[in-house]
Amino acid sequence: MNLSERALNMQASPIRKLIPYAEQAKKAGKKVLHLNIGQPDLETPKAFFDYIEKNKPEVVAYTHSAGLIELREAFSAYYNKNNIPFTSEDIIVTNGGSEAIIFALAAIADPGDEVIVIEPFYANYKGFSEMINVKLVPVRALPETGYAVPPTEEFEKVVTNKTKGIIFSNPSNPTGAVYSEEELKRIVDFAKKHDLFIISDEVYREFTFDGTKHISTMAFGEYDRTIVVDSVSKRYSACGARIGVFATKNKDLYNQVMKMAQSRLCPPAIAQIGTIGLLEMDDSYIEEVYKEYDKRRLSVYEELSKIEGAVFEKPKGAFYVSVKLPVDDSEEFVKWVLTDFSIDNTTVMVAPLSGFYATEGAGKQEIRIAYVLESDKLKFATHILAEAVKAYNDR
Amino acid sequence: MNLSERALNMQASPIRKLIPYAEQAKKAGKKVLHLNIGQPDLETPKAFFDYIEKNKPEVVAYTHSAGLIELREAFSAYYNKNNIPFTSEDIIVTNGGSEAIIFALAAIADPGDEVIVIEPFYANYKGFSEMINVKLVPVRALPETGYAVPPTEEFEKVVTNKTKGIIFSNPSNPTGAVYSEEELKRIVDFAKKHDLFIISDEVYREFTFDGTKHISTMAFGEYDRTIVVDSVSKRYSACGARIGVFATKNKDLYNQVMKMAQSRLCPPAIAQIGTIGLLEMDDSYIEEVYKEYDKRRLSVYEELSKIEGAVFEKPKGAFYVSVKLPVDDSEEFVKWVLTDFSIDNTTVMVAPLSGFYATEGAGKQEIRIAYVLESDKLKFATHILAEAVKAYNDR
Repeated sequence: MNLSERALNMQASPIRKLIPYAEQAKKAGKKVLHLNIGQPDLETPKAFFDYIEKNKPEVVAYTHSAGLIELREAFSAYYNKNNIPFTSEDIIVTNGGSEAIIFALAAIADPGDEVIVIEPFYANYKGFSEMINVKLVPVRALPETGYAVPPTEEFEKVVTNKTKGIIFSNPSNPTGAVYSEEELKRIVDFAKKHDLFIISDEVYREFTFDGTKHISTMAFGEYDRTIVVDSVSKRYSACGARIGVFATKNKDLYNQVMKMAQSRLCPPAIAQIGTIGLLEMDDSYIEEVYKEYDKRRLSVYEELSKIEGAVFEKPKGAFYVSVKLPVDDSEEFVKWVLTDFSIDNTTVMVAPLSGFYATEGAGKQEIRIAYVLESDKLKFATHILAEAVKAYNDR
Repeated sequence: MNLSERALNMQASPIRKLIPYAEQAKKAGKKVLHLNIGQPDLETPKAFFDYIEKNKPEVVAYTHSAGLIELREAFSAYYNKNNIPFTSEDIIVTNGGSEAIIFALAAIADPGDEVIVIEPFYANYKGFSEMINVKLVPVRALPETGYAVPPTEEFEKVVTNKTKGIIFSNPSNPTGAVYSEEELKRIVDFAKKHDLFIISDEVYREFTFDGTKHISTMAFGEYDRTIVVDSVSKRYSACGARIGVFATKNKDLYNQVMKMAQSRLCPPAIAQIGTIGLLEMDDSYIEEVYKEYDKRRLSVYEELSKIEGAVFEKPKGAFYVSVKLPVDDSEEFVKWVLTDFSIDNTTVMVAPLSGFYATEGAGKQEIRIAYVLESDKLKFATHILAEAVKAYNDR
């Protein structure tokens, strides 16, 4: 009675696997500042529960498998405001962005097929593809370039007759990079040349800084090959709602994914109702949130700049920054910080970046910081990290 | 740019695919009584929204990937009351029973591996296994035996070195059968003999009639090989909540499935909170619900008995009954009823059973009735069906 290879081969979450060390630190009486997980601390807008309270059904029934039509229309209005021409007929509401990614991968690739991914990438892409036996083929972005889209030659090197698509997040989790029109156009042109699907994960759409504008992959008009993955988790600080979006204007693809959506019946009904309330809010909420993250970003940047030998660019988007530290092994370093280092009885937890790579051994000096604490705490946390680097190398 | 074979091969939902014919009937001004889908009409208990209102969080954050500990403890108390010894450490809360089935199949079988299923079976098993490339191998239960567990020889005939497990629902959707201790023991013994996992889908646990007692597969003590799939959808008329359970006492298996659970982050947080409220209710709710379904069951049974040539047994559980009708092709018949037959301008929709079989051509004369309407409506609906059979054969 053996378990499946796909289960055994699946990696443990690189964001969560070091939690036992954090628990150990807490048991030892230390305070741990968590910069390891993208769980915003901001309040979910009241509109979420207000809308549920006003619209709670007598029977919490299955909704349409693509999601409530009112919700799909609200999403469509949101996309149109962002110059993305999705109608309610192009949208399938999913159990978070997670399910949208699984649907996209399963619809374009069979077991053994390949999908190119820009690494470092959102670590759970690996879990999803392992679960459905799709091979992720990495093309590497470098800290020295601010994790920009790699040269097209690098993509050309890895494309095979088994390659079905490209997946990436923009703004990027974990790097904080935001891709320029030129960078995106290179991806789109490459996809056209090799007839590939593009899975464009745009969940951090609103979070771009220093005047950088987010460009959706839909802007290039390659409607048949473009799949947009989205989520309300980060935008509205509603990670637990589990409301995501799979969207495409390719009708064949849409219809195939609808069969998958029908088999799991529907996305969570109550959270769908609450999300209508979120989407009906005006822009003032998101503007406030934006300002808050920008302030945090600058705090982290300022403190990180004090680490001699750290390689990183000022992050342009999302609420992450990846950094190459002057340490030999970032996973060992992260553990050591939790177990052996503190200032004022406070320590810090970040995510080692190797789990965000598909290439064995890559990212060994890198970490990801999620700036999900208020500015002062964040400044202190980054300061602890900076001092820890010195102490680690002097130990 | 081709779509994946697994997507193209996936069947459309047999419960939903004839909906266009129902819509046509409605456009023609007819009323359609829906007995095709297992969506109860009963009110969801107030405890669901009351508990959410009292416990709504400021930040709708990710929960533990296995679900809120309070919810897992409430589930554990429920199982213990039912003499099923699951602790909170054996439980992973899932996006409905659907996700629990996907996790179970993915954890025990790789692409190309086989899982034996008693057919007719819950149709979405097919979608889930197609999505992750597991082969369902059917062993057929017959209407003439009340869809009892087939003889062990039938299982022996299909077992191969690729067989990893057995899956079935008990009480059975779609047949309404409830398996006896002897029947279950045969399944368990077969699984022991061939060292297979057992995926026991027990979402209709409470719905057994005429003094029949539900026996959990856990009662046989084969803890390492037993996986229980569960859901609050039917028990509490809360299908849209999307709260299910994957439970096993096999720690290796649990840990592997936790990696899958972590990759999709968590089940829906708000519905989890509401479900704690549901599980804290006393038994009076379920007793009322039980009485209502029993009344409906007897109404359907009485009317069905009037159809000459129909083959079925009095259903013992769930809220379904499968019937072999004296018609040549039940799918054509179901369509014809919607388009060409009505009494008092009212027609009825049931589910043809062929989509609930893996064997090509099986179930061609059978249908499933979900008794999810109040007794009088249900009686009228079944009467329409009975008259339709005559008219169809006389046309």
